[in-house]
Amino acid sequence: MLENPMTLPLGAHLFQDETPLDLEFGGTLPRIEVAYETWGRLSSQKDNAVLICPAFSGHSHAGSHESDPSPGWWENMIGPRRALDTEKYFVICSSLLGGSYGTTGPKSIDPVKGNPYLGNFPVVSIRDIVTVQIRLLDHLGITQLHAAIGGSMGGMETLELALRFPDRARKILSASATDRTRPYTAAIRHLGRRAIMLDSEYKHGNYEGDGPGLGLGLAREIGTLFYRSRDEFNQRFRWQPIQQPSMPGLTFDVQSYLDHQGKKILGAFDANAYLTLSLAMDLHDIWRGYPSREDALEPVGAELMIVGVDEDRLIPIDEQEWLHHALITAGKRSYWRPISSHVGHDTFLVDTDQMTVLVRELLG
Amino acid sequence: MLENPMTLPLGAHLFQDETPLDLEFGGTLPRIEVAYETWGRLSSQKDNAVLICPAFSGHSHAGSHESDPSPGWWENMIGPRRALDTEKYFVICSSLLGGSYGTTGPKSIDPVKGNPYLGNFPVVSIRDIVTVQIRLLDHLGITQLHAAIGGSMGGMETLELALRFPDRARKILSASATDRTRPYTAAIRHLGRRAIMLDSEYKHGNYEGDGPGLGLGLAREIGTLFYRSRDEFNQRFRWQPIQQPSMPGLTFDVQSYLDHQGKKILGAFDANAYLTLSLAMDLHDIWRGYPSREDALEPVGAELMIVGVDEDRLIPIDEQEWLHHALITAGKRSYWRPISSHVGHDTFLVDTDQMTVLVRELLG
Repeated sequence: MLENPMTLPLGAHLFQDETPLDLEFGGTLPRIEVAYETWGRLSSQKDNAVLICPAFSGHSHAGSHESDPSPGWWENMIGPRRALDTEKYFVICSSLLGGSYGTTGPKSIDPVKGNPYLGNFPVVSIRDIVTVQIRLLDHLGITQLHAAIGGSMGGMETLELALRFPDRARKILSASATDRTRPYTAAIRHLGRRAIMLDSEYKHGNYEGDGPGLGLGLAREIGTLFYRSRDEFNQRFRWQPIQQPSMPGLTFDVQSYLDHQGKKILGAFDANAYLTLSLAMDLHDIWRGYPSREDALEPVGAELMIVGVDEDRLIPIDEQEWLHHALITAGKRSYWRPISSHVGHDTFLVDTDQMTVLVRELLG
Repeated sequence: MLENPMTLPLGAHLFQDETPLDLEFGGTLPRIEVAYETWGRLSSQKDNAVLICPAFSGHSHAGSHESDPSPGWWENMIGPRRALDTEKYFVICSSLLGGSYGTTGPKSIDPVKGNPYLGNFPVVSIRDIVTVQIRLLDHLGITQLHAAIGGSMGGMETLELALRFPDRARKILSASATDRTRPYTAAIRHLGRRAIMLDSEYKHGNYEGDGPGLGLGLAREIGTLFYRSRDEFNQRFRWQPIQQPSMPGLTFDVQSYLDHQGKKILGAFDANAYLTLSLAMDLHDIWRGYPSREDALEPVGAELMIVGVDEDRLIPIDEQEWLHHALITAGKRSYWRPISSHVGHDTFLVDTDQMTVLVRELLG
């Protein structure tokens, strides 16, 4: 067994799968590892599983549990009598293929070459990521999920799951996602990638240690402009300089906040993983390879709840509404749930009160 | 006379002013130089002058003329029977204090030290920039402009001119500007500055030659996301990858377009000038130093036309509309002219047809 040089989250399980994975855009991963965590108990009929599909910054530690009592990224959503009620549901969350949280990614050892992939990690797609999630479900003996739930990139994953593996989930919640990436959103992500590549520590991905920390920080800061909203920033931060302006120093408190976001990502996110997952989102297109939208949607059997946020600046609400109408037009059971929040794109992460209402309605 | 190491635009005049300029945020420039160009003839009463206030990327060459027949940045607006009719008006445009187009800026020689200011150029404000424009008008013997016109940063200049030098212009057109910079807009500009500072060629501004070209290019690319609109990008560019995706290569044509914008700025914009003018816009606040808005607006005598664009993502239209209402509330002659364009913030530069209609109405 090859060593996994990534930090496996405390209390995560590791599923090691020796079956090669052929990737959508070419290349093969000879073997994969999947880090995952679970909450609650799988019923004897194995019919109470709910899969949380993580977003770009997510990992398997969505909530606390005995093996790791630290709060997860969706802490308020998981537990007894919470939206994902662990007295009723068996909740699963695995980290993303291509990421840096224990599942195979750029820091993993390439078994062919015997050293980490780093800048040579192949292009992965949302479909590849979902294929890995399905392999984990196979491993756990779960033939059909009660539900798959995700926001942003996680919402893209749930859509591919609904289309490509239509018998594997009865219900789908896709929040703040899109059917396919629009040019403007791809432009935003491109600039984050450019920031990483601009850092002289990037070295075509073949860096040691933390690598291009300044570039990664700037990428995160660019993202933050779109993860949150103009209204939020204008309400939250001062409209006057916080100190005597100097060249090229900090002048406004919003700038300190952004720089803080940029620094927080260091050590928590690997730059090659950032590039890999960012590109996977750009390439997201549920229609790719189908002769028509009708053909793409024909197999879908799940009930879908499509959620959008009015102030979303990264993937605006009209994209989710459009998707809902496409599903309805195709005769699918889709429910449109627009929500209002000046948090914008990140609402699914931040406003767990609103998400709780929606998830409860979905799981019914 | 000290040598001016900047490129003086072909056909520009140079006004050399040996009177020290005390700056709003501290420090003094011992002498200043102002590069400017003119079109048409000043009437014997000197009452037909129109000042064009340049935006961030602007310079004195707003239009072609005999000494420089190359097209200017507002070419379609200036000339016989155009909006700025050179058979009727004497049109003036000077480049910006703090910039790199002939007027005193970071590349200028610091007369105290005998070498270029570079990273030691002081903080300048929109008010300082306007003070220099007024000195030029004094030099030209123009006591009152028929009009001052500007978009974006130029629109901020026209507002400061209206408030601080209320007897110097009869009419003002301020397009896509704001009364004071909001935190969200300051956040955007901050990330452009961060991109420049991230480039290892930046060297705290004390670079030789072109300096941090990659960082400057990325700053420009970040700006472009906000100068234009989501609708424009989504209509103009392909929704599919243009080639087999590779890590970390280009995938969408919008990304090639952005990188092209980033490269176009190289050699055309100095990084220290970028930082200086970017900060000047962040610091823009027409209310600064006044006990109340009433006090600030009390002296204003000019007729003002306030223009906003519905798809502006950098300085949204509600900021211009708010400013118009503040002027009306103060009993000022303000006219609100919202326009519609998916070009967004850059409409004043790009859509000269719509701008022509407005300027003609203003000049009457």
